[in-house]
Amino acid sequence: MNKKAVVLLSGGLDSTTCLAIAKTEGYQCYTLSFDYGQKHKFELTAAEKISKQFGAAEHRIITFDLSNRGGSALTDNDIDVPTEPTSQAVIPSTYVPARNLIFLSLASGWAEVLSADTLFIGVNAVDYSGYPDCRPEFIQAFEKTVNLATKSGVQGRRFTIKTPLIALSKQQIIEVGTDLNVDYGQTVTCYQSTSEGLACGVCDACRFRAEGFSQAGIPDPTNYLPNS
Amino acid sequence: MNKKAVVLLSGGLDSTTCLAIAKTEGYQCYTLSFDYGQKHKFELTAAEKISKQFGAAEHRIITFDLSNRGGSALTDNDIDVPTEPTSQAVIPSTYVPARNLIFLSLASGWAEVLSADTLFIGVNAVDYSGYPDCRPEFIQAFEKTVNLATKSGVQGRRFTIKTPLIALSKQQIIEVGTDLNVDYGQTVTCYQSTSEGLACGVCDACRFRAEGFSQAGIPDPTNYLPNS
Repeated sequence: MNKKAVVLLSGGLDSTTCLAIAKTEGYQCYTLSFDYGQKHKFELTAAEKISKQFGAAEHRIITFDLSNRGGSALTDNDIDVPTEPTSQAVIPSTYVPARNLIFLSLASGWAEVLSADTLFIGVNAVDYSGYPDCRPEFIQAFEKTVNLATKSGVQGRRFTIKTPLIALSKQQIIEVGTDLNVDYGQTVTCYQSTSEGLACGVCDACRFRAEGFSQAGIPDPTNYLPNS
Repeated sequence: MNKKAVVLLSGGLDSTTCLAIAKTEGYQCYTLSFDYGQKHKFELTAAEKISKQFGAAEHRIITFDLSNRGGSALTDNDIDVPTEPTSQAVIPSTYVPARNLIFLSLASGWAEVLSADTLFIGVNAVDYSGYPDCRPEFIQAFEKTVNLATKSGVQGRRFTIKTPLIALSKQQIIEVGTDLNVDYGQTVTCYQSTSEGLACGVCDACRFRAEGFSQAGIPDPTNYLPNS
């Protein structure tokens, strides 16, 4: 196995921590972001900056538009991002149909072209929003599938999907990243961040993030909207 | 299970036959094409026309660019489409890394938004080009994965991936489609068709297609380049 990795980088707290871990493990990192019609497009600016800070070998943005198909509060202007806590028992309206499946599929294609055997994705299944595509059973099934779908897999150069955050709480993720000198002030987590990267403070993503900093006893460096 | 289906439609012989079968089975068909930077972009024009002919409920094209990543003769201008037969023992240069994985993932997302439980894809593993993502083991693994990745799958509305052509020879596919009144003169199979939809006659795709018509004893309606 070589030490090239494609790292999915949204520009948020989790994926940035994941990139820091990949770098610490000695991988040559190729970072990949997606411009899929999300409302919180400022994360793309953050991702590009973070990729440079971590000395990634290359940063790419793949563009495709999911906003015109509807079905998610993150892409559909007719559905507001919820600002009240969503019950853990339901999948929230911010779920984007098949998002991580699409992201990992596109990442696998780029990885194959690069001859990179490893993909990093910062999913976690503890303090998260109840998305099915953040669970270990999905990741395991995807890993099996990608190795059947690709020339690399068939020819014995197996892809490995690494999910170093999957069993960590938000507090633990922040503690790990802080130890690795991640500058969380650069990361953008909010589902409806402004074009200047200011966070609303009230969406589920903001809430999990703020609780994580609070529980870790680390000052929250997030740039919030003045009135939030 | 409802009777809505997303049908992957490239505009070629296989996917058009697949659409004809889906329609005959009583599905309300939503056809989906991909503008992924392929050289043979005329297939998109053909797909749109074919979708209308079959009375699809809706036709969509999802655009994303794989041409700048390299790695395939179908998308990379620096790699010529081979015009000599490729050995069945190797995966040819026309292989596009992770293509059907990417296509099915994007199709699944649209299907979930539509509340369509069924996806049709016209892969076949007999007279084909040796692509790993046309084999039944890939399709089975993908079906399992998509049902773990999505809200629909988790909530018990399972996706089914239908591959009615997977065990058919090209001859059999043409015979089935002819029985269903498919107008193969409208379909575009060539890997390097011209902007007017004329086929080269010498690439692997043209060769398999021509052999299929010959073996079926059906006149080949393909519009070939004058000198091919």
